[in-house]
Amino acid sequence: MSKGTVVLAYSGGLDTSCILVWLKEQGYDVITYLANIGQDEDFEAARKKAESLGAKKIFIEDLRKEFVEDFIWPSVQANADFCAPPSFFSIYCQIQKFGIPVPVTPKAPWSMDANLMHISYESGILENPKSQAPPDLYLMTKNPADSPNDPDVLEIEFRNGVPVKVTNETNGTSKNAPLEIFSYLNEIGGKHGVGRIDIVENRFIGMKWFFVSFNYLTLYLLKTFFFLTSRPVFEIKYSFHIKILFFMCVAGFWYSPECDFVRHCIAKSQENVEGKVQLSVFKGQVYILGRESPKSLYNEELVSMDVQGDYDPCDASGFIRINAVRLREHHRLQGFSGKKQ
Amino acid sequence: MSKGTVVLAYSGGLDTSCILVWLKEQGYDVITYLANIGQDEDFEAARKKAESLGAKKIFIEDLRKEFVEDFIWPSVQANADFCAPPSFFSIYCQIQKFGIPVPVTPKAPWSMDANLMHISYESGILENPKSQAPPDLYLMTKNPADSPNDPDVLEIEFRNGVPVKVTNETNGTSKNAPLEIFSYLNEIGGKHGVGRIDIVENRFIGMKWFFVSFNYLTLYLLKTFFFLTSRPVFEIKYSFHIKILFFMCVAGFWYSPECDFVRHCIAKSQENVEGKVQLSVFKGQVYILGRESPKSLYNEELVSMDVQGDYDPCDASGFIRINAVRLREHHRLQGFSGKKQ
Amino acid sequence: MSKGTVVLAYSGGLDTSCILVWLKEQGYDVITYLANIGQDEDFEAARKKAESLGAKKIFIEDLRKEFVEDFIWPSVQANADFCAPPSFFSIYCQIQKFGIPVPVTPKAPWSMDANLMHISYESGILENPKSQAPPDLYLMTKNPADSPNDPDVLEIEFRNGVPVKVTNETNGTSKNAPLEIFSYLNEIGGKHGVGRIDIVENRFIGMKWFFVSFNYLTLYLLKTFFFLTSRPVFEIKYSFHIKILFFMCVAGFWYSPECDFVRHCIAKSQENVEGKVQLSVFKGQVYILGRESPKSLYNEELVSMDVQGDYDPCDASGFIRINAVRLREHHRLQGFSGKKQ
Amino acid sequence: MSKGTVVLAYSGGLDTSCILVWLKEQGYDVITYLANIGQDEDFEAARKKAESLGAKKIFIEDLRKEFVEDFIWPSVQANADFCAPPSFFSIYCQIQKFGIPVPVTPKAPWSMDANLMHISYESGILENPKSQAPPDLYLMTKNPADSPNDPDVLEIEFRNGVPVKVTNETNGTSKNAPLEIFSYLNEIGGKHGVGRIDIVENRFIGMKWFFVSFNYLTLYLLKTFFFLTSRPVFEIKYSFHIKILFFMCVAGFWYSPECDFVRHCIAKSQENVEGKVQLSVFKGQVYILGRESPKSLYNEELVSMDVQGDYDPCDASGFIRINAVRLREHHRLQGFSGKKQ
Repeated sequence: MSKGTVVLAYSGGLDTSCILVWLKEQGYDVITYLANIGQDEDFEAARKKAESLGAKKIFIEDLRKEFVEDFIWPSVQANADFCAPPSFFSIYCQIQKFGIPVPVTPKAPWSMDANLMHISYESGILENPKSQAPPDLYLMTKNPADSPNDPDVLEIEFRNGVPVKVTNETNGTSKNAPLEIFSYLNEIGGKHGVGRIDIVENRFIGMKWFFVSFNYLTLYLLKTFFFLTSRPVFEIKYSFHIKILFFMCVAGFWYSPECDFVRHCIAKSQENVEGKVQLSVFKGQVYILGRESPKSLYNEELVSMDVQGDYDPCDASGFIRINAVRLREHHRLQGFSGKKQ
Repeated sequence: MSKGTVVLAYSGGLDTSCILVWLKEQGYDVITYLANIGQDEDFEAARKKAESLGAKKIFIEDLRKEFVEDFIWPSVQANADFCAPPSFFSIYCQIQKFGIPVPVTPKAPWSMDANLMHISYESGILENPKSQAPPDLYLMTKNPADSPNDPDVLEIEFRNGVPVKVTNETNGTSKNAPLEIFSYLNEIGGKHGVGRIDIVENRFIGMKWFFVSFNYLTLYLLKTFFFLTSRPVFEIKYSFHIKILFFMCVAGFWYSPECDFVRHCIAKSQENVEGKVQLSVFKGQVYILGRESPKSLYNEELVSMDVQGDYDPCDASGFIRINAVRLREHHRLQGFSGKKQ
Repeated sequence: MSKGTVVLAYSGGLDTSCILVWLKEQGYDVITYLANIGQDEDFEAARKKAESLGAKKIFIEDLRKEFVEDFIWPSVQANADFCAPPSFFSIYCQIQKFGIPVPVTPKAPWSMDANLMHISYESGILENPKSQAPPDLYLMTKNPADSPNDPDVLEIEFRNGVPVKVTNETNGTSKNAPLEIFSYLNEIGGKHGVGRIDIVENRFIGMKWFFVSFNYLTLYLLKTFFFLTSRPVFEIKYSFHIKILFFMCVAGFWYSPECDFVRHCIAKSQENVEGKVQLSVFKGQVYILGRESPKSLYNEELVSMDVQGDYDPCDASGFIRINAVRLREHHRLQGFSGKKQ
Repeated sequence: MSKGTVVLAYSGGLDTSCILVWLKEQGYDVITYLANIGQDEDFEAARKKAESLGAKKIFIEDLRKEFVEDFIWPSVQANADFCAPPSFFSIYCQIQKFGIPVPVTPKAPWSMDANLMHISYESGILENPKSQAPPDLYLMTKNPADSPNDPDVLEIEFRNGVPVKVTNETNGTSKNAPLEIFSYLNEIGGKHGVGRIDIVENRFIGMKWFFVSFNYLTLYLLKTFFFLTSRPVFEIKYSFHIKILFFMCVAGFWYSPECDFVRHCIAKSQENVEGKVQLSVFKGQVYILGRESPKSLYNEELVSMDVQGDYDPCDASGFIRINAVRLREHHRLQGFSGKKQ
């Protein structure tokens, strides 16, 4: 007689297959659940494997659309990878916790996690941070050295801080549903070798692991260059980036009161982030060509050096003098207290 | 008879030449002061021009070494451009206030500012954010499309968070004085087309100007990938980045009590940032190959998946369960209050 | 013939009366506007004065209700004076910019500003920060030494982080409209001498003025003790307090995009701040007696030391050991690098 | 034969006495260690109890001086309780982890922890947040209703942000060593009923416990009113308060890299916090009477309304107009986009 039914998050890999068998041996019925979030997986093979191991019922669900809309888009609004390439951590490692482990094979002496956004690797020869990642590690990005000699030129349209349309100006291809937009950006990014990074993750418990990760996402995050409606609002929002990035994605507090709160605030800040950016994708890089927005505070007439703006040049003198009052007093006092800093 | 003596910050350009003449007409003696901070300037021609316009005394001083040590290095410690390429603002625009204006010529219908770190452009045809920067605008960087097909591989050694030595592993070239290190990184970056960015600056008064800027600096900022000694320290330091970047560099409060304070704190945080990074520079990108540090919290044995670390796997269950207590209560309460966020 | 019509923000005092006359002399028609935001003013006298000085039209508007709802309540949600008594600045000085100047009379050798929330004083003998404020300065608060020997016990009910009802448990008095609640709290606070503070303001331009101020507001801000729904949410909200307090109230950026944004975020954080607090008001102090909320994360059973909570004591060991991994590594490394911090 | 020697942190109470006996039964030699950090304890009795239970060696060490200098003073510099009375958490609960548990006796149906700074209580009848704390709970503070009808007037002198001398101006008593200063402030605070607070702690794991605590510390924290040297430095330091308070004191990360870092930064910010404050202590409150500092940015001449400061009133117009440029553009755009926020 069964001790009861257990739902097992099943990947088709070694670990969860063992667990399935062990649970049955302990006397439980097992329902397996496998979500498709873009990992490179033979789902049919996984189904058969679960069947052959005696799963009572097998669920395989395609959650790629939900993954883009509920996780990737909010992260984009949060610029949660805005500093990905030059930063020591990135969203890709965070997404990793949604990743499906692929077993370490004799051919690939490292562990690999993949989903719609990325593949990351760790362990094996990668544990020495001094060692260079071998070229055959990369599955989603072309080597920039071998990538096309002609760029793809894309136009991405944003509303509320997320892409709503992408058009390839080179060949007219156009996408406007979240999963299709994201997948197309991945395709173009991969073709041109965008997103190869090599980082050492700084994990919650404070230790560092060696880590190699690839992303395509830089592609459309350049939006911030222009559409931002107000500098002081950005400065406040800036303090949220690291919270979303590290505490909520990496450290696993996505479904927490503070993440609900921060996501709400960020979405508010993105209400006016609307317009179009033209990009050139080439040899591992993304270059902005131009941008336009109906809601930007940028005002060509206002900022022109050629025409008179809406303030008098003399105002600037007053502005500077008032700002300097405390600086002058500070320096006077430093003299008084005989200190040089 | 003279009304007195005025010291004029003189660039050799149109504006300050006019001011020189005007001050003399008003009855003042004028001493001109021209600092070399790396701008592309014919200093001898500037000296002759000042002489011919009647300057009483002419100072030309080479401050490039001080510029690197007192301004660029502290900014590097502050990661003040750590988000330069994907960010909407950059240190380059900030440095601009040290820049020397070069007059708008018939051939170049825009205004240009240059120094050791960058050239930036504005006005003229650049005022429309939708228009693409013309190729002949770029003076310091090779077009990535025309850059070498073979990378340069560099090793940069850091101490206290700033580079103390750079070695080109391809040809053995090595530099170890601040100005020489910085200039060499500029040279290699320029050769491979690193640092072309196209941003709209978000200025203090809140308006945006169109702005094109080139930097070489990303080159050695990748250091943060590895040497960081502690995640929580970084998180605190992170809040300083935007302050150093915007308020102190851009908004002109470099010589203020708060900048003294922040620089002191940042320098403290960089005490353990020590080690070496190997980089590959290629087609407008910089790729990390490896890194090592005697002071990192990274510990290969500790993090290995192959050997037993210094905590029991069961500890992780307790860690997760305790962290989850408030989340469970939060979700229980959300049910209670009938709210969905 | 008139040069046009000017609207003059008119206080009835010396300065604006002079301006009224001067504007007329310059050939303008003048409409005076005087808002009642709770200052101690003879509005009828002000009307007559404006009439006698030739104002074309005179508006006097009672904005006390709007003042409480649109300014004070959002500040309460923001805890914008949560640190008022022990802090070096307070909302009272900020509110000052809505204040109506009362001329310095021979009897009162200082300048005074008043509104519904406070009276503040400056200049004259108050400019020396070492000098004690004279007892006859205080108009809104009883001297605590002379205040009643029996407390008033109040119950304040909150919804969305603002008071919606106050009941005096001593005599049954009850108020439930914003202006009435606020005025009653002022009355009880004044009766018991709550809110006398003596601070040196740290103004925008960096200088300090001597400043004496009285507030009643601490009265209901004690709400935060209990109703807060989540610690991490509070920590994020905490960073807003100083922004609302200083940049938006004091520095005058209340009607800015960043204030709109911060107010929106704060209001969101207050959605669950609901419940009742019992307070005792006595001799210049406010003491919390008890509190209750239907939405608090506090759960008597869960936290009890007497019954088993919903986690195993052994979990705590794992929690502590995992948190300590990086600390042990840090101390190991400090030994290694031979440094003592 | 002994299995080895164990050092036991021994309080003399029930729990650790049981552990002592149990350890011996398991075959270990036990050395007991008991630190005096100001708890109300009969140390001689504890020594005898340890002896009688078979401790091999007994250490009792007076760490009160170190406790003040290494823990309390840095917390004072950090304003770690600057918001104690109106805040939902306080340093007192944090200090609790240094506290020595006193067993729940039949007479006192709650748990009590005490040290030099405070006594806190929890559990038993206190677990219901609605219930009022019984009067006989309080051991260190006089009931304000029964406290003297005449104030004590103190002058506290600060250097580097910590008290270096306290003088009672009423009777000439003076103290200038850390432990003596702190103990005297405790004595005067207790005499006048300063520091009774009733809070619900918001603990690390997210739940709340009912909590009653008494402090004397507000007494000298009022220093911040005046000595602060620069507003922007304070704003940066402000972000440290909650970190020191919650993460490092409460959550137990005092000996961590981030706490080392934050303490270093805070100490730097306090270098100019120097001068004297006069206080009146009366009926549960502390009132500032006056203050003076040789290093303040306050400059009576500069701020006077009576004499011309060092900037032209016209400068203010420019200052305001430049600051308003972006606000005007924001409101223009809000009209354009048809939105009301």
